Amino acid sequence: MNFKIGGTAARMPTPVIRAFGVLKKSTAIVNEQLGALDPKLSAAIQQAATEVAEGKLDDHFPLVVFQTGSGTQSNMNANEVISNRAIEILGGELGSKKPVHPNDHCNMSQSSNDTFPTVMHIAATTEIYNSLLPELTKLRDALQAKSEEFKDIIKIGRTHLQDATPLTLGQEFSGYAQQLTNGIERVEKVLPNLLFLAQGGTAVGTGLNTRKGWDVKVAEQVSKLTGFPFKTAPNKFEALAAHDAIVEASGALNTVAVSLYKIANDIRYLGSGPRCGYGELALPENEPGSSIMPGKVNPTQNEALTMVACQVFGNNAAITFAGASGQFELNVFKPVMIANLLSSIRLIADGSASFRTNCVEGIKANKDKIEKTLHESLMLVTALNPKIGYDAASKTAKNAHKKGLTLKQSALELGVLSEQEFDEWVRPEKMIGPKD
Amino acid sequence: MNFKIGGTAARMPTPVIRAFGVLKKSTAIVNEQLGALDPKLSAAIQQAATEVAEGKLDDHFPLVVFQTGSGTQSNMNANEVISNRAIEILGGELGSKKPVHPNDHCNMSQSSNDTFPTVMHIAATTEIYNSLLPELTKLRDALQAKSEEFKDIIKIGRTHLQDATPLTLGQEFSGYAQQLTNGIERVEKVLPNLLFLAQGGTAVGTGLNTRKGWDVKVAEQVSKLTGFPFKTAPNKFEALAAHDAIVEASGALNTVAVSLYKIANDIRYLGSGPRCGYGELALPENEPGSSIMPGKVNPTQNEALTMVACQVFGNNAAITFAGASGQFELNVFKPVMIANLLSSIRLIADGSASFRTNCVEGIKANKDKIEKTLHESLMLVTALNPKIGYDAASKTAKNAHKKGLTLKQSALELGVLSEQEFDEWVRPEKMIGPKD
Amino acid sequence: MNFKIGGTAARMPTPVIRAFGVLKKSTAIVNEQLGALDPKLSAAIQQAATEVAEGKLDDHFPLVVFQTGSGTQSNMNANEVISNRAIEILGGELGSKKPVHPNDHCNMSQSSNDTFPTVMHIAATTEIYNSLLPELTKLRDALQAKSEEFKDIIKIGRTHLQDATPLTLGQEFSGYAQQLTNGIERVEKVLPNLLFLAQGGTAVGTGLNTRKGWDVKVAEQVSKLTGFPFKTAPNKFEALAAHDAIVEASGALNTVAVSLYKIANDIRYLGSGPRCGYGELALPENEPGSSIMPGKVNPTQNEALTMVACQVFGNNAAITFAGASGQFELNVFKPVMIANLLSSIRLIADGSASFRTNCVEGIKANKDKIEKTLHESLMLVTALNPKIGYDAASKTAKNAHKKGLTLKQSALELGVLSEQEFDEWVRPEKMIGPKD
Amino acid sequence: MNFKIGGTAARMPTPVIRAFGVLKKSTAIVNEQLGALDPKLSAAIQQAATEVAEGKLDDHFPLVVFQTGSGTQSNMNANEVISNRAIEILGGELGSKKPVHPNDHCNMSQSSNDTFPTVMHIAATTEIYNSLLPELTKLRDALQAKSEEFKDIIKIGRTHLQDATPLTLGQEFSGYAQQLTNGIERVEKVLPNLLFLAQGGTAVGTGLNTRKGWDVKVAEQVSKLTGFPFKTAPNKFEALAAHDAIVEASGALNTVAVSLYKIANDIRYLGSGPRCGYGELALPENEPGSSIMPGKVNPTQNEALTMVACQVFGNNAAITFAGASGQFELNVFKPVMIANLLSSIRLIADGSASFRTNCVEGIKANKDKIEKTLHESLMLVTALNPKIGYDAASKTAKNAHKKGLTLKQSALELGVLSEQEFDEWVRPEKMIGPKD
Repeated sequence: MNFKIGGTAARMPTPVIRAFGVLKKSTAIVNEQLGALDPKLSAAIQQAATEVAEGKLDDHFPLVVFQTGSGTQSNMNANEVISNRAIEILGGELGSKKPVHPNDHCNMSQSSNDTFPTVMHIAATTEIYNSLLPELTKLRDALQAKSEEFKDIIKIGRTHLQDATPLTLGQEFSGYAQQLTNGIERVEKVLPNLLFLAQGGTAVGTGLNTRKGWDVKVAEQVSKLTGFPFKTAPNKFEALAAHDAIVEASGALNTVAVSLYKIANDIRYLGSGPRCGYGELALPENEPGSSIMPGKVNPTQNEALTMVACQVFGNNAAITFAGASGQFELNVFKPVMIANLLSSIRLIADGSASFRTNCVEGIKANKDKIEKTLHESLMLVTALNPKIGYDAASKTAKNAHKKGLTLKQSALELGVLSEQEFDEWVRPEKMIGPKD
Repeated sequence: MNFKIGGTAARMPTPVIRAFGVLKKSTAIVNEQLGALDPKLSAAIQQAATEVAEGKLDDHFPLVVFQTGSGTQSNMNANEVISNRAIEILGGELGSKKPVHPNDHCNMSQSSNDTFPTVMHIAATTEIYNSLLPELTKLRDALQAKSEEFKDIIKIGRTHLQDATPLTLGQEFSGYAQQLTNGIERVEKVLPNLLFLAQGGTAVGTGLNTRKGWDVKVAEQVSKLTGFPFKTAPNKFEALAAHDAIVEASGALNTVAVSLYKIANDIRYLGSGPRCGYGELALPENEPGSSIMPGKVNPTQNEALTMVACQVFGNNAAITFAGASGQFELNVFKPVMIANLLSSIRLIADGSASFRTNCVEGIKANKDKIEKTLHESLMLVTALNPKIGYDAASKTAKNAHKKGLTLKQSALELGVLSEQEFDEWVRPEKMIGPKD
Repeated sequence: MNFKIGGTAARMPTPVIRAFGVLKKSTAIVNEQLGALDPKLSAAIQQAATEVAEGKLDDHFPLVVFQTGSGTQSNMNANEVISNRAIEILGGELGSKKPVHPNDHCNMSQSSNDTFPTVMHIAATTEIYNSLLPELTKLRDALQAKSEEFKDIIKIGRTHLQDATPLTLGQEFSGYAQQLTNGIERVEKVLPNLLFLAQGGTAVGTGLNTRKGWDVKVAEQVSKLTGFPFKTAPNKFEALAAHDAIVEASGALNTVAVSLYKIANDIRYLGSGPRCGYGELALPENEPGSSIMPGKVNPTQNEALTMVACQVFGNNAAITFAGASGQFELNVFKPVMIANLLSSIRLIADGSASFRTNCVEGIKANKDKIEKTLHESLMLVTALNPKIGYDAASKTAKNAHKKGLTLKQSALELGVLSEQEFDEWVRPEKMIGPKD
Repeated sequence: MNFKIGGTAARMPTPVIRAFGVLKKSTAIVNEQLGALDPKLSAAIQQAATEVAEGKLDDHFPLVVFQTGSGTQSNMNANEVISNRAIEILGGELGSKKPVHPNDHCNMSQSSNDTFPTVMHIAATTEIYNSLLPELTKLRDALQAKSEEFKDIIKIGRTHLQDATPLTLGQEFSGYAQQLTNGIERVEKVLPNLLFLAQGGTAVGTGLNTRKGWDVKVAEQVSKLTGFPFKTAPNKFEALAAHDAIVEASGALNTVAVSLYKIANDIRYLGSGPRCGYGELALPENEPGSSIMPGKVNPTQNEALTMVACQVFGNNAAITFAGASGQFELNVFKPVMIANLLSSIRLIADGSASFRTNCVEGIKANKDKIEKTLHESLMLVTALNPKIGYDAASKTAKNAHKKGLTLKQSALELGVLSEQEFDEWVRPEKMIGPKD
């Protein structure tokens, strides 16, 4: 092999390999239907391709991402593995190319230039439907459940990291849930373009060496096998020469990663402590926190998830530049694009699952600490604005700040209101929504 | 001022300032309707805010992007400019805060924390509707028109930069047009989230100091003034603490920039020459190309547009990092996020307009060169695959390549077909689509 | 003009314009020395170029960054402004090109292809020496001074945001100072490559239309005028076709921005509060913090500086993509590369100055809070590891954590040591360095 | 395990694991020297650690990158593997922690917080010295050799992709060689900071639980074992809380990737054809180019290398954000930082080797095509500027361009010079350098 680049970590991702199984089975079916492929050969190819699709032959795909930019080696790898396995099924001699020829039969009416972008879309779509969307949804639901669990816990708000007016812990978590609800929609919005398949464009997008309608039939067949509503791409020139759909999808994942970073980061700060931090949340203790400091529990899931986010940001940058670099009838950065996209999909899916089960679901509110912190805050003073005016309210807060007093102490010392008035006016539960 | 950072190039973009005009007018109207704001003061504020919205007071907004991360200075700047101008309208004394107080009246029921994200969305939406989408559409149409103009010009295809099977120049341009058709849809898909307004969240998202429904009324008013279908954000905690909608929008612009880079890059290579390049296209001569080499015409619009793309890629990275960095109830990277997004919007809009009028519309096909190149190509050999077999076809191409022959000469020399057969079988016009 | 892209915010940065003044003066001097340029014309050109170098003619350079990728328009702009001003000095007619011709005299032996990369390096070097390095050094010194001021304040350490073993506040700040000491060295390390000038390469790097040694003389002259040790580039092909030195410099700035982000972020969290945050530092009150919450002081300088960092990260991405995109003998992304680099330089310099004067120098330690927090911590338990063993120490910490006890209370309750032993063994001041 | 994220592709890179072997051996030696570790246990630990360092126990390190952000699991993994193997060597019972305890003995005086950053630097340095620098040097030498081989081949220059004045193919390649010479220096410049080791900082940088000088001794020991001049970090707070040295190194690799992208991209365009491209270079035929088009040879190595460059750009973005995100005494993005850096190092090293052996070394110049192209060019007209003036030269070029004439034909038709003059004046070999 001429591409000893990157070792096992740089292997072509398995979803690509399995998508080749789906595709080669689909093309065999269509070619047989059109009378171009002998039914016996077709059956053997289909069986072999099914095994590829099911991951039974993963080991026969040792190629790395950093190969020909059209994924030609991987396409040929698929053709050869399938033809050999089909030969085996038919009792032929391995490597003889008879009776199933890798090019003439497995690659019939195809080119790497259209098969590889097709498997890119099949692989990405499959992973999004089967893995990413379910996991994002479960994480969103877990955050939503926490939002409801925490709906009556009033806490200090923080803006600019400074104490601000109160809100409920449930409201805070509702923001996180909303971010993921939006994130799920963002991912769903990129699916229509991923569902377009390049198959039928052959070498340059014209469809040379195919018949009219072949592209439509293959897309139908792929839909049937996968259960996802694939369609043939309306313009095959675009589908081979540009992978904007991949860049678009990566942009959505990038946005989701931004959300996850924010959520995981907030939660670890809210859980900081145990004594010398914000300490509002208790995160689950999953493993010993320190090899030197006993009793320490670290927000390790948050760390893993924020690292995932960083990786997704990086993957997005790689995809962006690769996506821009197509030339004429072909983008030759296909493998690096799909490898990075699948990395982002898997990392977000796995990271969300790990974060949910090992962190979010086990989060507990430190109610005492939250309550204590809230009442120490000076920002409840905002409630006094409409009562005693902005200037007097400000003075009260500043006096308390300077002297280390509570707000009430300060207000009474300054004589701006009575104790009864304070207790009546400064009620956090009245400060967590608009007036009627 | 405490923020002498970046000079005039770092000024808060004017669309933000004008959006403050729209917002402050809207809030004055709603506050008056609710009986909270004196109609006379409201009228003066509305008039002043209209002037801000129309750009008449741009000079009064000298602040830079690198200020408080909530845009507080810009919100206060708006409050002060409007209150002062309203005072002037009412015949009061400038700077007296009477009878129109910047905080009590212009900022009534508002906080920087909700006004600034609101103007971010108003500004971005307005620029997208008024400038970006029209320009992308015009560029797409121009590319589409060229695609139709060039529909009968058959040319060599190129994959891996290597000669490949033919296509029409019109097909090639149809790919570009498709990229932009998709790009327009990508931008449209991000609008729903930009149309959500944070107004009504006040300091931390709870809506403290507003009345129920105030948020809805303000969004309605903004819609009325702008003509765009703004809605109040369903979750104000998310709307203040995260700006995922900005990150999402930037992702779409990033994808559009990827498309533009590809298109502009292809076109400049296709126009390379005049003698020693691909030379298939003649780009318009807009300015002298070289201060030392007479007669040289450079693809300067392509260079400007690909530089625009690089800037958008960079802006996207800045927005990503900033978007992930929100903390608790507030993202304090608001100004840098909107500044980069507006930069991307404007650069793509302006760049598309410049590229269209100064390049695309004037592109001519060098038909002679295209024809000559096509017939020198060895890749027409693909037409012979089904006739003489892959191996003989391959041999013919290789023999021609080695000896500098034409395909026909090579085929005849090898005796694999007759001259008549060659002329009948090798017909580029039969190679630009699937068989019936 | 054919490049209406981006408006005033996209103007070519003034350091580029002024560097053209330096360069055109230098070439006039050298051309006169070689007898190629009439002394009278040379004198007038030198005077005009000096005015450009001093910024007196900035208004005559309205061009934007998004122009021809070689900066041709800006080079011609410089030639024309200087020739016109020289004509004026000599009493000629403006626009007549006589007696000073923009091409023949101001651009003598030059091409945009070598002048523009030359001014890129002059501009970047000048800004780094005059602005960036001094400001980074002052900020480092301010952090170093704080490190010394705080050297006796022992505080809780935090790892994973969790309470950890103690250190001094001075030690914590020493890390920040070290980051900037390294950052200064990083910037210094990129200077040697920025000090190489492309001048003398003319159109494609061969130096056609120059004389041998002309390049060396020009570099000497630029050094003389600027005081910086410029040298002629050893390989002009590289100097025109690639701007790796700009990418390299941006990489160093990116690293510095990473440092600044970390420092500013830590400081704002350490200053979070006033009541409900870490509260270890008191940051200067520079402006009212909130339009709705009286008494609130926000870490606005930290917000500005972290936004600067995000912009620098974005600029670096733009520069990376642009730097990779050179073609054959010319990189045609020159303007966008230098504009982003100068943006990063200025933003870091300005941001550092603002952060230093408005934040760092005024930081005070909240000693009471720091002391209180330290002694509430459970992590002093680490001191007991060598005394009572890891397991007993761990149990003590966990017992205290569970029951809300102090460490001492917990240890005594568990009977693992005596009160006297505790007081003797748990001494934070013994925990802030290695044993002798 | 709580971190099922990313699968085998996300495994902690083996250089990190092996560096743990080096480190644990070093600390055992030092701890024994200081009398803290029993010589028998030390010997067993050293033997076990040596096996880790030599890669014999790689299979025992199944952990992924997305774990605790301090790399705690990997440190514990190393401690456990080594203690178990040492127990085995000493004839003890596996898993008994006797007589070699993973924490007490293998982690003696250490914390994940200082061991992991130490192995980050050991791993990166080792890979740079052993793999990256040798491969970059060999590639540079191969390009340099080509530069010399091609030194007499005069060809058309291209700027803005347009025909420009001539240069030699050797000069063109000298630019590539210079880029890599600079790239090698760039990598060397980041080594001093990578050679600083965090070991001895323990949990928060203070060195608690170590003895004075322990850090220096460990660094000496690591140097001895590796042969690289490691030193203890001058400030351990910086060394734990920030990984600017990693960001800096990534910046250098990013710059090298920019260079490689440019070089590989130029070469593939120069090799484009065979008939319808620039066709100046013949690249080696390594594999069949197309599954549908016989006779096609693709620049697959260039594609692999430019994909590598894109990945490095992405890795750099990931590292940047992770590097900025440290908090207080610890950066908890360590694993993702080192994984991306090692990925960049390996990909550049492997990619350079592959590109050199499979492409560069076999590049041949298509002299006939180069010669023909050169003489068709109009840009030799530049040679006439000093002879017949810019205006007449320009007219000559334009006339030739319009009518499809050669320059000579055009000049004679216009009567601006004689045939003899043309032949004397227009001599490419006189145009490839400055005048004497």
